[in-house]
Amino acid sequence: MPISDENRARTKTVMDRCRKLAGFSEQSGATSRPFLSPPMRDCHQEIAEWLEPLGVRVEIDAAGNLRAHYPAAEAGAPRLLVGSHLDTVPDAGAFDGALGVVLGIALLESLEGQRLPFGIEIVGFSEEEGVRFGTPFIGSRALVGRVDEELLRREDARGISVRAAIEDFGLKVAEIPGARLKGEILGYVEFHIEQGPVLDELGLPLAAVEAVAGQSKMEFTFFGRANHAGTTPMHLRRDSVAGAAEWIATVEREANSVPGLVATVGTVEPKPGVTNVIARETRLTLDVRHRDDEVRLRAVDRLIRRAEEVAVRRGLNVTQHTLMSLPSVAMDAVLVEQIEEAIRQAGSKPHRMVSGAGHDAMILAEKVPAAMVFLRTPGGISHSPEETVEMDDVAKALEAGSRLLELLAGSPALQRRVKRA
Amino acid sequence: MPISDENRARTKTVMDRCRKLAGFSEQSGATSRPFLSPPMRDCHQEIAEWLEPLGVRVEIDAAGNLRAHYPAAEAGAPRLLVGSHLDTVPDAGAFDGALGVVLGIALLESLEGQRLPFGIEIVGFSEEEGVRFGTPFIGSRALVGRVDEELLRREDARGISVRAAIEDFGLKVAEIPGARLKGEILGYVEFHIEQGPVLDELGLPLAAVEAVAGQSKMEFTFFGRANHAGTTPMHLRRDSVAGAAEWIATVEREANSVPGLVATVGTVEPKPGVTNVIARETRLTLDVRHRDDEVRLRAVDRLIRRAEEVAVRRGLNVTQHTLMSLPSVAMDAVLVEQIEEAIRQAGSKPHRMVSGAGHDAMILAEKVPAAMVFLRTPGGISHSPEETVEMDDVAKALEAGSRLLELLAGSPALQRRVKRA
Repeated sequence: MPISDENRARTKTVMDRCRKLAGFSEQSGATSRPFLSPPMRDCHQEIAEWLEPLGVRVEIDAAGNLRAHYPAAEAGAPRLLVGSHLDTVPDAGAFDGALGVVLGIALLESLEGQRLPFGIEIVGFSEEEGVRFGTPFIGSRALVGRVDEELLRREDARGISVRAAIEDFGLKVAEIPGARLKGEILGYVEFHIEQGPVLDELGLPLAAVEAVAGQSKMEFTFFGRANHAGTTPMHLRRDSVAGAAEWIATVEREANSVPGLVATVGTVEPKPGVTNVIARETRLTLDVRHRDDEVRLRAVDRLIRRAEEVAVRRGLNVTQHTLMSLPSVAMDAVLVEQIEEAIRQAGSKPHRMVSGAGHDAMILAEKVPAAMVFLRTPGGISHSPEETVEMDDVAKALEAGSRLLELLAGSPALQRRVKRA
Repeated sequence: MPISDENRARTKTVMDRCRKLAGFSEQSGATSRPFLSPPMRDCHQEIAEWLEPLGVRVEIDAAGNLRAHYPAAEAGAPRLLVGSHLDTVPDAGAFDGALGVVLGIALLESLEGQRLPFGIEIVGFSEEEGVRFGTPFIGSRALVGRVDEELLRREDARGISVRAAIEDFGLKVAEIPGARLKGEILGYVEFHIEQGPVLDELGLPLAAVEAVAGQSKMEFTFFGRANHAGTTPMHLRRDSVAGAAEWIATVEREANSVPGLVATVGTVEPKPGVTNVIARETRLTLDVRHRDDEVRLRAVDRLIRRAEEVAVRRGLNVTQHTLMSLPSVAMDAVLVEQIEEAIRQAGSKPHRMVSGAGHDAMILAEKVPAAMVFLRTPGGISHSPEETVEMDDVAKALEAGSRLLELLAGSPALQRRVKRA
């Protein structure tokens, strides 16, 4: 399916706008826009200017989320949420998060004033990356009513609490309950770069995300005996590094043997960690993800047993504890099917995949039907200034978005599938 | 061979004196006595008081070494050096180094005024551990004429140079050449705790050290690709931690398969080293030791090849460089035989072994016949306040030392084997 000149022009605008937002940064020459930072205000202002010609007014809710409501043909109709997050990691790329918001606005523009049987709310979440307060999804948690006292008390590196940050930005903590989703909602659709290499490897531009993988984060420590690297014969060693290395190999084997499982050891810390001392203890982290929680938890159990086997055989001890265990979140099956059909109509082969990373859609899914469209990420590179996205893929995403709106607009049955939030 | 009451009393004195010296420390409640620190002066003063009744005067040479000459029966006779080092690591035990000096003094005392056909010079080296200036053997290097400008310019953590430290201690850098060994020397004998588990495992109190192992210190870095731990399927990873772990296993296998070889990976540093990122690079250190330099260097070559094989198979790159390569140092064969005979005469089975750690004897061996006696180290524990030594083993070492002096005194042939330093 050839891309129309109109779509091409809108796509160029999408790319330009993402690059423009990337300039709103705490860091000159790089993109860094944490939760409620001053450049976030400029970002909001800029988006408000884009929406003004559509007669759509931007509001910033008490959690700092940008909310903009494009009305339905008739009052009292349900609405579809479209969006992503506006915060970034330090030294970020231009597309992670921002692209989903900017694409949503382009979809409104492509309606050229047409009203649909449902309204569209553009959402630009204030916080997804977890950079400033070490905990992610602050923005989307406000929409599902999960901003609690514990979260409000969290402090950033400078000792500023979430509560204080909200008030400093000119917002009112007391009004956070008002940020919760209200009324009838058709669903939430998030366009986001894949941030992985799967589509790039397959040579496909778009995917419908059917689930966000569940995740276990764990810490393992092997305890051996510190000894002199020169004076201790091999057979008298209890080397925590050698034990840890043997176990890392089993982690890799386990993940390779279970389809869809990923398991990563990203941290290895031997102590004392010097050249001429056999390390007395080695701490490692383990990150395991799979779409099926049963499969993930069984894999974790096996890895714990393997660690114990390695330890016993080597005269080591091993301890482990779970830092985090998040269940898998299924996307809404009907919405996923509609997205697949929309991608097909946009002229691409719709790949179905599981997201290995967490996204706002996973939080929204607690309350409303949610689904995601992934865009191919060249080289799988994100969280980096080298992050890119192909212009043609953005054009196809825009096209698929338009087709999705048509599919929903043309089906009274789908419009009746609403959630009262 | 039962231990005489006299020997038992002297042994108790040796233990008490070691513990007394341990109290001369920069750190209250712990032993920490670096090169030319104020407590080193108290240590010298204390030793001088022990030697005074023997009519032996202590001198401190320009490198801060304690030197004390017990004269021979006749003027112009050669002399035997007996000693070890007086500096310690931070939070040290009471025996590492000090024991060799204190045992030397006990040997002089056990002569009860008797003069031998050779003199005995007690040496308490000022620096062996390498703590203060990051380079070891400063004391013994002065005796063999290897204190050079580069060494004198080195600075400690506070920016004080070796040169300044020497002058601050009231010594004269210009007089360092005067610290060099002069005259005819029979050899150097060093009593030292093994600092390893070998004798403890064998259930033997003493060993004659026949060589100090050669050592290679290297750094390896595996380079892969940083990727998201959730979004990157196993088959699309280039995980530097997994590659490093596979190679650590081959290091262990290589060392296990070559008799006498020890190989240690003590440091593992993945970057960025966070839970949810596949590490883009992992730096490791390798320490390889063996008494035969050929064997050691061949093993290092094989480990480099293995690293390259692992890297190629996994789509990684690996770089390596040598931080240090020290050849093995043989102890003097005749002196080693005499030590074995002396240990036998003292009633113990003389074990022969290679020292995996460096010692002053290795530096002295450049100029004079040198050998060492190792004392069993319970649990192999040293460089720790938990370092101990069995009183019975010290008694046997004292006995063996006396036998060694008798063997040398009784053999004009051995006395003619001198080195003119």
